[in-house]
Amino acid sequence: MSDAAAFDLVIRNADIATAADRFTADIGVCDGRIVALGSGLPRGASEIDAGGRLVTPGGVDSHCHLDQETGDDSVMADDFLSGTVSAACGGTTTVIPFACQQKGKTLRAAIDTYHRRADGRAVIDYAFHLIVTDPTPHVLAQELPQLIEEGYTSFKIYMTYDALKLNDRQIIELLALARIHGAMVMIHAENADCIAWLTEALLEQGITAPIGHALSRPMLVEREATHRAISLAQLVDTPVLIVHVSGREAIEQIRWAQGHGLAVYAETCPHYLLLTEDMLEDGPRGYQCICSPPPRDEANRQAVWDGLVNGTFQVLSSDHAPFRFEGPHGKQVAGENPRFDQVPNGIPGLETRMALLMSEGVMNGRIDIHAFVALTATNAAKLYGLYPRKGSIAIGGDADLVIWDTDRAFTLTNDALHHNVDYTPYEGWQMKAWPALTLSRGEVVWDGMQPNGTHGRGEFLPALRPQLAQPHRPLNPRIDAHRVLPRFAFPAVYRE
Amino acid sequence: MSDAAAFDLVIRNADIATAADRFTADIGVCDGRIVALGSGLPRGASEIDAGGRLVTPGGVDSHCHLDQETGDDSVMADDFLSGTVSAACGGTTTVIPFACQQKGKTLRAAIDTYHRRADGRAVIDYAFHLIVTDPTPHVLAQELPQLIEEGYTSFKIYMTYDALKLNDRQIIELLALARIHGAMVMIHAENADCIAWLTEALLEQGITAPIGHALSRPMLVEREATHRAISLAQLVDTPVLIVHVSGREAIEQIRWAQGHGLAVYAETCPHYLLLTEDMLEDGPRGYQCICSPPPRDEANRQAVWDGLVNGTFQVLSSDHAPFRFEGPHGKQVAGENPRFDQVPNGIPGLETRMALLMSEGVMNGRIDIHAFVALTATNAAKLYGLYPRKGSIAIGGDADLVIWDTDRAFTLTNDALHHNVDYTPYEGWQMKAWPALTLSRGEVVWDGMQPNGTHGRGEFLPALRPQLAQPHRPLNPRIDAHRVLPRFAFPAVYRE
Amino acid sequence: MSDAAAFDLVIRNADIATAADRFTADIGVCDGRIVALGSGLPRGASEIDAGGRLVTPGGVDSHCHLDQETGDDSVMADDFLSGTVSAACGGTTTVIPFACQQKGKTLRAAIDTYHRRADGRAVIDYAFHLIVTDPTPHVLAQELPQLIEEGYTSFKIYMTYDALKLNDRQIIELLALARIHGAMVMIHAENADCIAWLTEALLEQGITAPIGHALSRPMLVEREATHRAISLAQLVDTPVLIVHVSGREAIEQIRWAQGHGLAVYAETCPHYLLLTEDMLEDGPRGYQCICSPPPRDEANRQAVWDGLVNGTFQVLSSDHAPFRFEGPHGKQVAGENPRFDQVPNGIPGLETRMALLMSEGVMNGRIDIHAFVALTATNAAKLYGLYPRKGSIAIGGDADLVIWDTDRAFTLTNDALHHNVDYTPYEGWQMKAWPALTLSRGEVVWDGMQPNGTHGRGEFLPALRPQLAQPHRPLNPRIDAHRVLPRFAFPAVYRE
Amino acid sequence: MSDAAAFDLVIRNADIATAADRFTADIGVCDGRIVALGSGLPRGASEIDAGGRLVTPGGVDSHCHLDQETGDDSVMADDFLSGTVSAACGGTTTVIPFACQQKGKTLRAAIDTYHRRADGRAVIDYAFHLIVTDPTPHVLAQELPQLIEEGYTSFKIYMTYDALKLNDRQIIELLALARIHGAMVMIHAENADCIAWLTEALLEQGITAPIGHALSRPMLVEREATHRAISLAQLVDTPVLIVHVSGREAIEQIRWAQGHGLAVYAETCPHYLLLTEDMLEDGPRGYQCICSPPPRDEANRQAVWDGLVNGTFQVLSSDHAPFRFEGPHGKQVAGENPRFDQVPNGIPGLETRMALLMSEGVMNGRIDIHAFVALTATNAAKLYGLYPRKGSIAIGGDADLVIWDTDRAFTLTNDALHHNVDYTPYEGWQMKAWPALTLSRGEVVWDGMQPNGTHGRGEFLPALRPQLAQPHRPLNPRIDAHRVLPRFAFPAVYRE
Repeated sequence: MSDAAAFDLVIRNADIATAADRFTADIGVCDGRIVALGSGLPRGASEIDAGGRLVTPGGVDSHCHLDQETGDDSVMADDFLSGTVSAACGGTTTVIPFACQQKGKTLRAAIDTYHRRADGRAVIDYAFHLIVTDPTPHVLAQELPQLIEEGYTSFKIYMTYDALKLNDRQIIELLALARIHGAMVMIHAENADCIAWLTEALLEQGITAPIGHALSRPMLVEREATHRAISLAQLVDTPVLIVHVSGREAIEQIRWAQGHGLAVYAETCPHYLLLTEDMLEDGPRGYQCICSPPPRDEANRQAVWDGLVNGTFQVLSSDHAPFRFEGPHGKQVAGENPRFDQVPNGIPGLETRMALLMSEGVMNGRIDIHAFVALTATNAAKLYGLYPRKGSIAIGGDADLVIWDTDRAFTLTNDALHHNVDYTPYEGWQMKAWPALTLSRGEVVWDGMQPNGTHGRGEFLPALRPQLAQPHRPLNPRIDAHRVLPRFAFPAVYRE
Repeated sequence: MSDAAAFDLVIRNADIATAADRFTADIGVCDGRIVALGSGLPRGASEIDAGGRLVTPGGVDSHCHLDQETGDDSVMADDFLSGTVSAACGGTTTVIPFACQQKGKTLRAAIDTYHRRADGRAVIDYAFHLIVTDPTPHVLAQELPQLIEEGYTSFKIYMTYDALKLNDRQIIELLALARIHGAMVMIHAENADCIAWLTEALLEQGITAPIGHALSRPMLVEREATHRAISLAQLVDTPVLIVHVSGREAIEQIRWAQGHGLAVYAETCPHYLLLTEDMLEDGPRGYQCICSPPPRDEANRQAVWDGLVNGTFQVLSSDHAPFRFEGPHGKQVAGENPRFDQVPNGIPGLETRMALLMSEGVMNGRIDIHAFVALTATNAAKLYGLYPRKGSIAIGGDADLVIWDTDRAFTLTNDALHHNVDYTPYEGWQMKAWPALTLSRGEVVWDGMQPNGTHGRGEFLPALRPQLAQPHRPLNPRIDAHRVLPRFAFPAVYRE
Repeated sequence: MSDAAAFDLVIRNADIATAADRFTADIGVCDGRIVALGSGLPRGASEIDAGGRLVTPGGVDSHCHLDQETGDDSVMADDFLSGTVSAACGGTTTVIPFACQQKGKTLRAAIDTYHRRADGRAVIDYAFHLIVTDPTPHVLAQELPQLIEEGYTSFKIYMTYDALKLNDRQIIELLALARIHGAMVMIHAENADCIAWLTEALLEQGITAPIGHALSRPMLVEREATHRAISLAQLVDTPVLIVHVSGREAIEQIRWAQGHGLAVYAETCPHYLLLTEDMLEDGPRGYQCICSPPPRDEANRQAVWDGLVNGTFQVLSSDHAPFRFEGPHGKQVAGENPRFDQVPNGIPGLETRMALLMSEGVMNGRIDIHAFVALTATNAAKLYGLYPRKGSIAIGGDADLVIWDTDRAFTLTNDALHHNVDYTPYEGWQMKAWPALTLSRGEVVWDGMQPNGTHGRGEFLPALRPQLAQPHRPLNPRIDAHRVLPRFAFPAVYRE
Repeated sequence: MSDAAAFDLVIRNADIATAADRFTADIGVCDGRIVALGSGLPRGASEIDAGGRLVTPGGVDSHCHLDQETGDDSVMADDFLSGTVSAACGGTTTVIPFACQQKGKTLRAAIDTYHRRADGRAVIDYAFHLIVTDPTPHVLAQELPQLIEEGYTSFKIYMTYDALKLNDRQIIELLALARIHGAMVMIHAENADCIAWLTEALLEQGITAPIGHALSRPMLVEREATHRAISLAQLVDTPVLIVHVSGREAIEQIRWAQGHGLAVYAETCPHYLLLTEDMLEDGPRGYQCICSPPPRDEANRQAVWDGLVNGTFQVLSSDHAPFRFEGPHGKQVAGENPRFDQVPNGIPGLETRMALLMSEGVMNGRIDIHAFVALTATNAAKLYGLYPRKGSIAIGGDADLVIWDTDRAFTLTNDALHHNVDYTPYEGWQMKAWPALTLSRGEVVWDGMQPNGTHGRGEFLPALRPQLAQPHRPLNPRIDAHRVLPRFAFPAVYRE
C-alpha cells in the first residue's frame, strides 16, 4: 500500500502560471485530470521533473480551419491529423475548428462530415464552431437550437465572402436565436460591397499584385462592419465576439461598445501583432501574407498590442488557414503571379501562436504571463463553453499542460514545423521560447523533439453554454418590457 | 429724367441680416434682383417701408415632398400650388422638392413628371433633387450624368423603405458617380433590416399604437446607418449630406467624420428640435407625430440644438411630408386606429419652419440671427448649387426677402396655415414671430394676411454644382496614386 | 507516523473561486500557508468542512483610514483594533491603511507612529501606503527611496484638501521618483480651487445643508483632476492609480488613457456603485453620505458598474473613513446641523465592502465571481506588492480565506457590524450573502457569530514592487533617447 | 448739384467676398464708412477701379504684441508705428494688441501706458486686450469692471510663464467676473510646471539647442491646460477662447467641449498650419521658429487645417511677437547659441498672416473664401466687440478693405516686409497672392508698393461686449437654481 503510487503522474517543481496566479507546486494527475496541486506530493506512477520551468495551461486555439472546403479551387493542406499534431507541437491542446454549412445543405450534414474528418485522426481534443451560411427556417427553428443543446454552442457569421456572407436580417435572426438559446456568435466583420467595388476598381487599373489585397480592404471596410455587427448585437441585446481585429479604428468601435456596457468580446491574431502591410510588397512573401483583414501599419500594430494590455481583447487565436504557397492549389502557382483576389486568403499559425506570444509578448515585456494564459487558453475555454475542463491548471481540469523552454533562443524555420503547409510568414523570426513538453490529459503529445500522440486519441468536446465575464443585463428595457424579445436566461454565473 | 425711378422697388430702412452680417440699409431692386444696398437710396417705382424691422433672405427649404407618389395607399395632400403658397406664407421663397424615380422607369420620366406637376402651379421658385431608386447601368452611365449637366445636381439615396432603398454596392456606385460628376448626395440613414425585424417583433407582441413606430426605430438604427453612409462616402472620397438627423449618437458619428477631415454635411428639422418621443403616446397626436427617424427624448433634443450652434449641422429643412390626419388616405382613418407601420411617415412643416426657428432659436436665445440665416437659406443654396442667385441678401441676387414681425406673440393653429394638411404638430405652440411680408424676386407673395402670388409664377432653377465649404482633398492618397478613382475636379472655390 | 496529520488544517469540499478559476477541492494548510489543493487530501490536525460552499481569497482592502489624524477637529473612530476586527468580520484579511506624513515632519516619523498604532492591536495583516504631504528634498532624495526599499512601495498624493494637497510640480517630482524607484502612486483627483470657490459661493448663498457638498464637487471637478493626473503620469511615463472614481466623465478620461497604452489603473468603492447624490438630501442621512468625491446620479452609478465589467477598474476598496455620526467629533453634532464643509468627509465600509459586492454584483448578476475576487483581493495584492503572499488561493500563499454563506438573505443594520462607527450608509440594505467564516493564515478570525482573532496577531507586510499587468513601455521615446528620464528598470514580469 | 460727387470714394467693379457672400459690386464710401453697395453707383470724389479683383474686409489681427515689455532682457522690435505699417502692408486694418498689467501695478496704468505708445504712431485702428497678471481685489472689484465698461471687453490669462501665469483660483475669479460683466477671456493654455520640469531635465542632460524648446512642451502640456481651461470655464459657465492651438490633442478637447454645448472658442495661427517641429533642428532657423506652443508634426499640421474647415477654430491670428534674430536682444546673439529656454518666445507674422492663408488656404483649395474672411476678420471683430464697425463689407461699416492681387506668384523675402524684425520664418516661401491695395476707413494705407498712412491716423476702438454665436445657456442649472452664480445677462443677440 505504501508502495502504491498516489497519482498516475506527478509533474514536479513546476513554476505554474494561470490567468490569475503564479506559484511553484507539484501537479498530481489521475485519469488525465489534475487532482492535486501542492508541495511535495506523494509519488506518481510516472513522474516528470519540470525543474522549476514555467508551466502554463495547454493552449485553446479557438479559431482555426482544418480540412475545410473553400468553395473554390483552393484546398486546405492540413487535415485533423497534421493540424492537431502541429498544434500539439506548438503547445496547443484544444482546437475549435469550424464545421461549415454548405448552402443548400443542413448544419447536421456539416457536423457529420467534420466528425468523420476528425475521428481517428485528431491527436488532441476538439470542439466545433458551426458556420451558418444558409439560415433557413429549418435551421433556425430546429437544427441550430438542437445542435446548441448537443454541445455546438458557438457559431460564426460572415459579413463578407460571396459563398459565406449573410445579410443584416439574417444576422439579426441568428443573434436573436443565440440570445434565446444561449450561444456565442462570432462575426467576421468586413463590408463585402466595399471590398468588391474596390477590387474591381483596382483590377481595372491593372493592380493585381498582393498589395492590391490590402488596398481593397482598407481599415474603414473593417471599421464599418465592426460598427454594424455591434449595432445588430445591441439591437438584439446579446453577446457577440468580433474575430481577427486588425487595427485602431475597429478597436475604437469595440471599446466604445464595451465602455457603454455592451457584451462585445474581441479576438486578434499573431499576424496583427507582428506583420505589417508593407510585407505584401515584399516579393513572393506578399502572397504568403495575404489574409483578411490584411496586416496594417506600425501604428495599428501597436494599437493591437495595447488592446491586449487594456482588456479590449479576450482571445488570441491563430486563424490557421493552411494554404500552401506552391503547387496547384497554392497561393502562388510558381511563375504565374496570380491576381491578388484569386489568392486563397489566410496564413498558417496553429503551431507558432503560443511561442510567438510568449517570445514577443511576455519575454519582450509587453504583456504579463497572466495575460498570456488568459489570451491563449482560459478566456477561449470560458467563452466557448469548454471551461473548467479546459483552459487552466486547476483541480478537476484536464491535465493539458505546456512545460516551457524559455532559455532557448533560436531562429524559426518552416522546416521545424509540423503542419502540412510549405511556408510560415515568420520564417527567420528570432524566437525566445518554445514548448519543451506538451501534455494532453496527462499524455505527452510533444516531447520537445517529436510529436507523440496516437492518431485519433483526441476526443470531441461537447461545449457548454458560454461563460461570460458580463452576466446578462438587458439593454433595451422598454422593448423588453413589452416582451418583444424573449429574454434568454443566461446561466447566472454564481449558480453555475 | 429726374422723375424717373431709379429702381423698380426700394425697401426702406431694413434691419438686414445675412449669414455673416447685420446692417441697416435700403434695398434697391430691379428686374427682381437686388442691385443696390445703401442709406438713402433714390426713389423706387414702388416702395416698401420696412420701418427698421428685421429682414432676412427668403428661406430655401431643401427637403420637402410635394405631389409625390408614396408607393402605397397614402396620398400627399400638397401639390405644387398649395405647397408653394404655404411655403411663401411662412417666409420660404425657394423649395427643392424631390423628383422620385419609380423602379423600372427612367430618371428622365420622373423629371418630366414633376416638371408637369410644377408648371403653372408653383408660386415661388424651385429646383429638384432626384431620388434614385433604380440605378441601372443606363441611369449610371447616361441619364444621371446628363441630368447633372442639365441642373439636377443633387440626388437622394434611401437606406430604408422597401420601395426606395439601395444596397451598399448601389450606394457606392452612386457616390462614385457623384464624385466624378460633382453632384451632392443626400442620404436617408436608417437600417432597413433592423426596422423590419423590430416591427415584426412589436406587432407579434400586439404593439400597434404609434409608440411602436419609435420603438421600431431606436437611435442605434440611425447611428448604424449614419456610420455606414459616412464609411461609404469615405471609401469613395466624396461629399455626402446626412438628412434629418435626430439625436446624439448620429451626431457623434457625423462629428467624428468632420473632425477627421471628411466632407460630411448634415441636416436636421424643426421636429427634432421641438418634438419628443413621448408625444407618440399622446392619443391621436401620436399618429400626427409619426415620422422617420422618430422624435427622440429631451437629451437628444438638446444635442440637436447644440449641433446647430457648434456647426455640426449646415441645414435646417422641413422634411414637409403632407399627409392628412383624417380621411381615407390619412394618418388615422377616424376610429380605426391603424397599425403604426401602416401610418404614412412624415409631418407637415413647410410653413412653420422659419417662424419656429426664429421664435425658439433666435428669440429664445439659443442661436444667433446669422446661424438662422445660414441654416434656413444660405447653406442650402450653396450646397445645392442655387447660390448666389438664392440664399442671401447681396448685390445680384434675387430679391427673395422676408420682413419679420417679431413683436407678435400668438398661438399657432392649423387654421391659420395654408397647406392642405388638416393638422400641424405644433398646434397651440406659442410663437414669437411671423413673416410680415414675403417677397419673391421683388414681388409680394405673402402680405401678412393673404398669399399673393400668381399661380405658376415660380420658376424652375437649374442648379449649379455644389459649393462646398471644404474644397476637395483626397483622403485615400495611396488608392488615388494608383488611379483607382478618377479624381473629380471639384470646382476650386476661389475660381468659381 | 501514519497517525500524524499531514496538515495543520484541512478545509474540505470547498467551492473555490480565484480571479481566473473555479473548482472544488480540499485546501491543505501548514504554518498558515496553503500547501495543497486537491480531492481527498489526507487528514489535517484540524478540519473545517466547507460543505461545498463558495470559498474566496480573503479580501485585501487597499484604501482605508485607521487611527489617522485629520488635521482638524474630527477624530477617526476606528483604530487598528476595531478597524481590523471589523474588516475580518466582513471577510477582509489584509488592510493597507495610510501612514500620513505631517507637514514639517518626516515620512519616517509617520511610519514609526503608525507602526506603534498597529502593534499589538491589528488582528489581521497589514501593509502601509505613505501619504506624502511635504516632499522636501530630504524626502525625495533620501527618505522615500529608502522607505520604498524597506517595503513601503506605494504612496498617495492628494490634489485637494488644504492640509494634504500638492501642486503639479510636486506631483511630477514624486511621479519621477516613483518611476525611478518602482513605486505605485495613488492619486486623489479633485481640483482644489474649484471646490474652494464653489464652496464659498454656496455658503454665500446660504446653502449649508449636506447637498451643498455635492454641489461643491460636480463631476467636472473630478474629471479635470483626473485628466491632469493622467497627463502628469504620461509626462513622466510612469504608472499611476486613480482612487475612488465616481462617474462617467472621470471614467472616460481613464479609458482614453488605457486605450492609448498608458499604464493608468483605477479604483472605485461600493458607495459609487450603490449610493446616489439624492441621498444627501435625505435628512440626517445626508450627513452620513458625505464623502469625496460625492455619490453621483443613476447614470453614473451604472457607468461605474460597467467599468467593473469592462476592465476599467482594477480595484474595489472601501475608502473606510470612520467618522461617527453623533457626538462631539461626529458628522452631525445632534441638533446643530453643521455646514456641509465642516462635516468630516468619508463613510465607513471596511466590513460591508465584500458582502455588498457579492450581493449586488455577483448574486444580482452584474459581475462574475472572478471579477469579484480580482477586484476585492487579487489585483490590489499585485498592484501593491503583496502578491503572491496575499490575494489568491494558491500553493504557497497565506491561508487567508472566506467561506461564504450565500443562502442568507438578511437586512443589514449597523448593530450587527463591529466597527466603532455609529452608522452605516447601508442601514436597512437587503443582503444576500455574508462571510460564514474568515481565516487569516489558517486561523479563524470571524466564525460567523463572533470576531475571534488575538489582538496584535496581525503582522506587518513589507511590500514588494508593484506587479503590473502592463510591463513598462516608454511612451516618450524621443525624450528617453535624450536620456532626460533615467529609465526605471521595472522588473520584467516573466523574470519576477 | 448734378456735378456733386455722390460719394467721397467709389471702388468700382469689386469681386466682394464676405464671411457668407460673394458678389460683384461698386462700393460707395462717405466719411470713411461704406454707405452703398450696388451696380453702377454714381460718381465718387475719388474712384478706384478694382477691375474685378477680389476684395475682402481688411484683416482684424486679434492677437499681436506691440511695444510690450517682456519681463526679461528681450525687447520687442515693433512699436505701434512699425507694427501697424507692417500690418497695413499685409492687408490688416485693425490690430488688437495687449495692454499688459505689470505685477504690483494697476490695469489702469497699463492702459495709460499703451495708449501713450499708440498715440501718434498707429496708422490703422486698434483696440486693446488687457493681460491680467495680478488680479488683486481692487482689480477684480473695481478696475476691471470699469475698464470693461470703457471698452476693454476682453482680457487674456496665462497658464504659463512665471511673470504672467495665474493659478486656478485666480482664473476662476476672473472667469466669474467675465461672466458677470460680459467680457471675453482668452487663455494661453500650457502647463507651467510640466514645462519647467522638462526644461530642467533637458538642460541637465546638456540639451540646449532649439529643439529642446519643442521637447520641453510636448502636446500633452498643451492638452492638459486646454482641458483645465475648459473645465474652469464650464464651472463658471462662461465663454472662453483658447488661443494659438497647435495640434490634434488640444483640438480634441475643444471639440469635446463644443460638442457638449460649451461656449468654447478657439484660435490658431499660420505657423501651426505651415511650420513643423523639425524646423527647430534646422540650424539658425531653429531659433527663429521658437514659439509657444511649438510647431508640431505633419499630422498635427493637417489636424489644424481640418479644424479650420470643420468650424473648431473661429479665429486665425498672427500672434506677432517681434523679436529680432540678431543683435543684443535677439533670438540668437551671433555665435553665442543661447540655451533654448533663454531665447525669446514668438515669431513675427502681422504682415504675412493674410497672404499666407490666401495662398495656402484659399488658392491651394483647402478652405473657401468665406472661411478666409471669417477667420481673418469677421469672427474676431464679433468676438472682441468691434463688429459691425470692423470685420466685414456691409453698409455702415468702416471702409477697411483689401483689394487682392491673386495673379502674382512670388517668393517671399524678409526684405520686402515692413516690420522691424530681421527675419521671417517664411523666408523663401512661394506666395500666390498679396494685397494690391489696403484701405483703412477709405484711405489707402498700402498702395501695393509703399505704405501710405499718416503716422497716428489710427484710432482707438472702444470695444463692445462680445457677440457670440452661442447666446448664453446656463450649464449648471442646479447651481444656478440656488443662485450661486449671479447669472450674467448676455445681450440677447436678437435685441442687440
